[in-house]
Amino acid sequence: MKLPLGYLYSSTYAGIRAAEKDDLALIVSGLPASAAAVFTQNRVQAAPVRLSRRNLQRSHGLAGAILVNAGNANCATRTGDAVALSTSKAAAKLLKLQPAQVLTASTGVIGVELDPSKITNCLPRLIEGLHPERFDDAARAIMTTDLVPKTALAEVKLRRGTVRIAGMTKGSGMIQPLMATTLGFVLTDADIPPEQLRPILKRSVERSYNRLSVDGDTSTNDTLVLLANGAAGVRPDPSERAKLEEAIARVMESLAQAIARDGEGARKFVTIVVTGAARDDGAARIARTIANSPLVKTAIAGSDPNWGRILSAAGNAGVVFDPSKTDIRMQQVLVCRGGLAADFSEAELKAKLDAAECEISVNIRGKGKGSARFWTCDLTEGYIRINASYRT
Amino acid sequence: MKLPLGYLYSSTYAGIRAAEKDDLALIVSGLPASAAAVFTQNRVQAAPVRLSRRNLQRSHGLAGAILVNAGNANCATRTGDAVALSTSKAAAKLLKLQPAQVLTASTGVIGVELDPSKITNCLPRLIEGLHPERFDDAARAIMTTDLVPKTALAEVKLRRGTVRIAGMTKGSGMIQPLMATTLGFVLTDADIPPEQLRPILKRSVERSYNRLSVDGDTSTNDTLVLLANGAAGVRPDPSERAKLEEAIARVMESLAQAIARDGEGARKFVTIVVTGAARDDGAARIARTIANSPLVKTAIAGSDPNWGRILSAAGNAGVVFDPSKTDIRMQQVLVCRGGLAADFSEAELKAKLDAAECEISVNIRGKGKGSARFWTCDLTEGYIRINASYRT
Repeated sequence: MKLPLGYLYSSTYAGIRAAEKDDLALIVSGLPASAAAVFTQNRVQAAPVRLSRRNLQRSHGLAGAILVNAGNANCATRTGDAVALSTSKAAAKLLKLQPAQVLTASTGVIGVELDPSKITNCLPRLIEGLHPERFDDAARAIMTTDLVPKTALAEVKLRRGTVRIAGMTKGSGMIQPLMATTLGFVLTDADIPPEQLRPILKRSVERSYNRLSVDGDTSTNDTLVLLANGAAGVRPDPSERAKLEEAIARVMESLAQAIARDGEGARKFVTIVVTGAARDDGAARIARTIANSPLVKTAIAGSDPNWGRILSAAGNAGVVFDPSKTDIRMQQVLVCRGGLAADFSEAELKAKLDAAECEISVNIRGKGKGSARFWTCDLTEGYIRINASYRT
Repeated sequence: MKLPLGYLYSSTYAGIRAAEKDDLALIVSGLPASAAAVFTQNRVQAAPVRLSRRNLQRSHGLAGAILVNAGNANCATRTGDAVALSTSKAAAKLLKLQPAQVLTASTGVIGVELDPSKITNCLPRLIEGLHPERFDDAARAIMTTDLVPKTALAEVKLRRGTVRIAGMTKGSGMIQPLMATTLGFVLTDADIPPEQLRPILKRSVERSYNRLSVDGDTSTNDTLVLLANGAAGVRPDPSERAKLEEAIARVMESLAQAIARDGEGARKFVTIVVTGAARDDGAARIARTIANSPLVKTAIAGSDPNWGRILSAAGNAGVVFDPSKTDIRMQQVLVCRGGLAADFSEAELKAKLDAAECEISVNIRGKGKGSARFWTCDLTEGYIRINASYRT
């Protein structure tokens, strides 16, 4: 599959992190792109989050570049705002963009001053390295404890031509050392004006990143940007918008799943499906509560078909349902029927739960058709090792 | 310190759990006692929770006995309600009490049928064993994965005489295998009518059990009962009620702390103090969010003075505060002043964090005097081992 047209990528090692691997990435759109973004809801927000939010307002939803560093979250420091501003301005100048059209994102340790000269000194080299095929280099440069880079591509055939979507993300779960959790950049060459892009992003985030959790922590730096530069010369017909949105949402789902798969210490990817709720958001709340239960997550780690933990976690979601109507399946095996133990072979199910992909489905059999899918991972000793020893 | 007057205790092994240690406990008050109780807020509620709630209503807040078993939660089973009812009725008959004056509580695996004959067969032996000094035996019989029994005693000198308070509890944290989490029984020989006992319990729970978390899970069986049988012949003067309530609350705080100390896999007891909030409940919400953050808990496990995780967790509490005014101390050492790194020796603080007791204090320096203390424990690989292998 091809990358979307009209984007250039670059990366370099700026010396922000100790390990000598690229820690500075640049994404540039040749044409000013429609831009929409969502940011962390944490009350503590990193400087690049504040700046990007302001820049999107000033530019009325247009962006030409995204400057991203790993190794330092640029959060809770004296000079954070000045660093974000000066580095983005320097990039804008060299790229001949308006300053408000450069978005910034950072990930890494928080509370440590970020030396802006490390970035500005590298900018000429970074810009010189821009190339339409260096997408994977940029995806690798934004990694922190990620074991693998995370990207997704899609192509959509519309009446007037084909458009492409490419996304990259980082994160070993919502849980990430020092909260420098999730960054995501999704690019398309379709022609979508900013006011249409924002609702597309909002709905797509709702069914992708907002259906992902490792422990329910929200970082200070979470940033997800969607750019549409129109380089394909294809503006979707009104009747085709849903098709394009579906493709964008799937790219984002794929990225969100990749984060759960690469969760810190995770050995298993877990999908939780809740059905039979009055509304989708109620189903999602139940799914999230199950996904965040350490008891459920350790049971999965131990291949233990312990449905009582699942039922009890569901009961803590703050959603009204009747436990005595609830069915639970693990790996498609009915383990709980109407709130009571079903007849199943524990040994056989235990073997099935040794798989790298586990599914828990909960049908609360209410009157509605509300449902949700949610992704998480198991909780292992590896997680503790990583997080008890990180940084020091 | 002496036990409160007028209570008898007994325990025996009924064969409910595999390991041959006592799993059935009985607490009897010679006089009908004023009784107040709080129960789990989980939507999935065990049969003994439903029965005890109903019995307290029927008896208008009087109780003569509490029948407790470990090893089976009597939750999510076909026969649960019938088992709770028949065993409590059998106990009432032998004790010559009205059925509604027997409260029940269970802890252990959920979703497994509990054979009532195991309990009823033991009842004569259990009742024969009743003795005013067997308090510790009963405390031991209600343990599940607890490493130590958990009890607390207090004495209060009132104008008309001395009254005593004794409490027992079980649980290795709010996190407990199979959610059979917390049971607590607090007994006093003071003379307090039921309508006064309920608000005392409510306020005392708020500052004790409701300030305790290991992972935020709430069990299907949580039950806390406060009995006041008046056997000391001392009714507190209206002016002395606050003094008595303080003593009851302290017993409950001590029990709640004992649970955090014995948290599964825990090596450290952690106290979180939040000050400077508009209201106490806002402070408690921030403290709870910090206490439930796996990143904070693993940092404590690793003696890592990683205040960024604390600040970020606070930011996720849904409470309005200004991070740039926030001070954070670990072991009394200022690590974050006004949202920024303070000047401290990381090596020295790391050594201090190796202690078995750690304190995190967060002052958000708002306009109010709202504050809260909260207790939790660190998160270690031991926790994962226990919970990934329990049951199977």
